[in-house]
Amino acid sequence: MMNILITSVGRRTQLLTYFKEELNGQGNLVATDNSELAPALYVADKHYIVPRITDPEYINILLNICKEEKVVAIFSLIDPELSIISKHASLFENIGVKPIVSPFDVCELWLDKYKTQSFCLDNGFNYAKTYNNLNSFQDAILKRKISYPVFIKPQKGSASLNINKANNFEEANLIFNSSQEMIIQEYLAGQELGVDVYIDFVSKKVISIFIKEKIAMRAGETDKSKSIKSDKLTSIIEQLVVKAGLVGPVDIDIFEQNGEFYISEINPRFGGGYLHAYECGVNFPKFIIQNLIGNINTPTIGEYEENVYMMKHDTLTIRKQ
Amino acid sequence: MMNILITSVGRRTQLLTYFKEELNGQGNLVATDNSELAPALYVADKHYIVPRITDPEYINILLNICKEEKVVAIFSLIDPELSIISKHASLFENIGVKPIVSPFDVCELWLDKYKTQSFCLDNGFNYAKTYNNLNSFQDAILKRKISYPVFIKPQKGSASLNINKANNFEEANLIFNSSQEMIIQEYLAGQELGVDVYIDFVSKKVISIFIKEKIAMRAGETDKSKSIKSDKLTSIIEQLVVKAGLVGPVDIDIFEQNGEFYISEINPRFGGGYLHAYECGVNFPKFIIQNLIGNINTPTIGEYEENVYMMKHDTLTIRKQ
Repeated sequence: MMNILITSVGRRTQLLTYFKEELNGQGNLVATDNSELAPALYVADKHYIVPRITDPEYINILLNICKEEKVVAIFSLIDPELSIISKHASLFENIGVKPIVSPFDVCELWLDKYKTQSFCLDNGFNYAKTYNNLNSFQDAILKRKISYPVFIKPQKGSASLNINKANNFEEANLIFNSSQEMIIQEYLAGQELGVDVYIDFVSKKVISIFIKEKIAMRAGETDKSKSIKSDKLTSIIEQLVVKAGLVGPVDIDIFEQNGEFYISEINPRFGGGYLHAYECGVNFPKFIIQNLIGNINTPTIGEYEENVYMMKHDTLTIRKQ
Repeated sequence: MMNILITSVGRRTQLLTYFKEELNGQGNLVATDNSELAPALYVADKHYIVPRITDPEYINILLNICKEEKVVAIFSLIDPELSIISKHASLFENIGVKPIVSPFDVCELWLDKYKTQSFCLDNGFNYAKTYNNLNSFQDAILKRKISYPVFIKPQKGSASLNINKANNFEEANLIFNSSQEMIIQEYLAGQELGVDVYIDFVSKKVISIFIKEKIAMRAGETDKSKSIKSDKLTSIIEQLVVKAGLVGPVDIDIFEQNGEFYISEINPRFGGGYLHAYECGVNFPKFIIQNLIGNINTPTIGEYEENVYMMKHDTLTIRKQ
């Protein structure tokens, strides 16, 4: 049996449905979340309510679920858990469970927007100008390296939480000091793109790159998007993921401004907009299952239809307690 | 044929699905939106892309669709359109179309949070303290009638857009002056409730009141909720909707603080969280269809199960163009 454990599943019912369809009875889908009101729990064949990821017993609880459910692979759907699973990868491997996650230092790097800037600059990738203190920011303003409006957000943020726009120094100062560990970032006015990448964790080769234009966002997630192709961006992404040491499913946010591509964010996990790629035939669950069997996937970069639109909308699950 | 036109359908696919099921082939469901990427368009039997509601030709275009599709009733799913349809109600009635909407002045009143406060105070309903200028607000602060934090939002806002929290006068001043027609409102710390009400538009009697506790919000909409009952709140709502002259489906937001109920907002239309009521057997589409036939609905206030949880999550629609 090819039993797979997905953790912190939240509301990602559709992604779990794809896995269940791909497993097609050849394995159980097991899901965890800390809330009984995480609707994706009820898509899985079996589910567990677990403590928060910060609980000292958290990893032990996951290890026990893996043993109990004879799980062969584990992965998480939320950013702050990636480093935790990656850090304890050997504990999972020791009991025959493959953690589908990038190496620990890679996960940590992409959580931190200031470190991300350094990596991009060192390796020749464009990145929004980013400052971690008001002095260097004001200096850049004076030297006209950056201009208002700017975005102020947590250095290690996720899910577009706590992002504020500042139109002048008064606002910037107020917002920057309203919370710990904030950064000030250049406003990129261009088209936002989302890229879904799969790097084979047997061959370490890039297998798939799916590019979409973001048309509308909602609660920090892509709500409407359109599939597009770009040879230039595909080439940048191929170089980036190899240099960055990423493996498995990766979600990359990009800004296109005046024909240049700027890295905005890398999430080494399934992105919330991955559904669009799947519906265009880009099947990451299949790639993962092939890798778990020990097979290498054949690269199919760019093999999808252009100008396909995705629109997300709500459905619901009802529970009586 | 009982053909119904729903306008500005957006992403409300599930609500349209309920109508389609209730019509059960006895009428067509016709939908409009200004965007081809409104997923609910594709649930309807027939759909039209129309200009924005501010277009001078908008009402004529709707009237033509009504004639073309032999529509017997029309209603909108967005706040700013309620007054527009209500204002032109006679034009629809003249061609045999029933606008399912409250009277014009009622729609206008509930769009405006400052007027709402006056109505509530005049009629003995609790409402969050609301100020439309900084002087009266500062005076209230000095007299300890209100304390920080406060919310600053548009006087005629909708969809929880542009709502900001201010913790001191410096922030309040900055936010209040950042945009036109803002109000400053008391922060109510209690439990937020959502109420779905149906007022029969033949008998003018309240037919149904469904109360839910809001557990989690997302993009200004109830994402998770729990059905509850409260005789006290039911009685307040019955008085409120009659005094307010509301008819048809109405969505009311309430805060419960120290056992008192405060009106937060009234939307004279289907609320985004109505799906929860429907799944608990509270069938507004059925009430509407009975009213359109000319039948009076029997009141079934409070006839639903308590402690039923709703969890919303995403599904998607794909379009090729």
